[in-house]
Amino acid sequence: MPDSAVAVYSGGMDSTVMLRSMLESGVTVKGALSIDYGQKHRKEIEAAREICEELGVKHQVADLRGIASLFGHSGLTDSETKVPEGHYEEVSMKQTVVPNRNMILISVATAWAITEEAEAVAYAAHSGDHAIYPDCREAFASALDQAIQLCDWSSVWLYRPFVNLSKREIVVEGSRLGAPLSKTWSCYKGEALHCGKCGTCIERREAFHLAEIEDPTSYASDAPSLDSLIQCDWRYSE
Amino acid sequence: MPDSAVAVYSGGMDSTVMLRSMLESGVTVKGALSIDYGQKHRKEIEAAREICEELGVKHQVADLRGIASLFGHSGLTDSETKVPEGHYEEVSMKQTVVPNRNMILISVATAWAITEEAEAVAYAAHSGDHAIYPDCREAFASALDQAIQLCDWSSVWLYRPFVNLSKREIVVEGSRLGAPLSKTWSCYKGEALHCGKCGTCIERREAFHLAEIEDPTSYASDAPSLDSLIQCDWRYSE
Repeated sequence: MPDSAVAVYSGGMDSTVMLRSMLESGVTVKGALSIDYGQKHRKEIEAAREICEELGVKHQVADLRGIASLFGHSGLTDSETKVPEGHYEEVSMKQTVVPNRNMILISVATAWAITEEAEAVAYAAHSGDHAIYPDCREAFASALDQAIQLCDWSSVWLYRPFVNLSKREIVVEGSRLGAPLSKTWSCYKGEALHCGKCGTCIERREAFHLAEIEDPTSYASDAPSLDSLIQCDWRYSE
Repeated sequence: MPDSAVAVYSGGMDSTVMLRSMLESGVTVKGALSIDYGQKHRKEIEAAREICEELGVKHQVADLRGIASLFGHSGLTDSETKVPEGHYEEVSMKQTVVPNRNMILISVATAWAITEEAEAVAYAAHSGDHAIYPDCREAFASALDQAIQLCDWSSVWLYRPFVNLSKREIVVEGSRLGAPLSKTWSCYKGEALHCGKCGTCIERREAFHLAEIEDPTSYASDAPSLDSLIQCDWRYSE
């Protein structure tokens, strides 16, 4: 664990539990960085700001909207592309991938870490992400760690504590630490409440269910019931 | 050499010679990417656009000004910090370093390469950069190459043809290929003409001199003479 770090911080469950865990362990968190890449679910940035205020962590938003047009069509940024619903399956969820998103986020966070003289960049990718997001794999994180250790005279490294944990285990850890899970935002649609049926909402609901911890999230009134999700093996489509 | 690539393209000599060399070798250049990070020498972006038009290469500018504030104080972006003059010595030129700039540029170019279905990202760091810019070293480029090969299902790699060439060798190669060297822009000050005395101007002049090729650049009227630069071992201060 580093002595000091800046965190790549989405305002979602994984990075919130990571932030809480670092604070618990006495890491000096020099800041949490959210990226505005024109995502539809801008509520995650608001959630990030509120949680940082609660945790006493400096919060910064890096505005990357100027490069969003290069990313091509992604369900997360393109107003004409619909966010896919249903479980995180390869076919539908690939539409939500912003190419090379994690390297962009981590490279910007590394620039910030150098400026803030932090020892590490903390990044909360977890094992459940691997099957669909190549840039959440440990092999990728390990190669990127090597690169960021060489990018400057002052060495910065990539702290990735959850890379071998499941979402269920992250929920268990977050609950144990008293992390503000109810304030975190996951839903890709970014409406008033979590929709309860997009890939990330279903993953969230599944994680609480498997962890046997009550889900504190308010879902939209037309969200499918937990029972119906379980019965259809967590795959839901309208 | 890749079959197709997008280039990280500054509009300076190194990346212009790289672009010309790839076209000469039959590489499909899917585009050249300049980054607007709020640099004072915005003329390099204009130069990049003009040269791409001449070479028939698609040119894009990625607007990263939204994150410039995270970079801290750099002589290249901060209006209150003066661009240092004199030869590329460690002490003065470190002031011009934008932290982790090359990883940010390459990660954004990689996102574009994935979108454009290009095989590689081409990047023109050369051996003379190594002593002052850690992110121009081959060890860094090699680690980053590993990371970008893993960042997506489609493999992209980092083509870095000049990593073991000197600036003199690049000028020789550019001249041989008929690259539009006179249209390239180097000067960090970004005024009407090259100042002839900042680190990158002196490096430029020195490269032509060592290559024994006439320098086609128009320098400002108060630029020191070539003779005076040679006499003081290329180190000039006002």
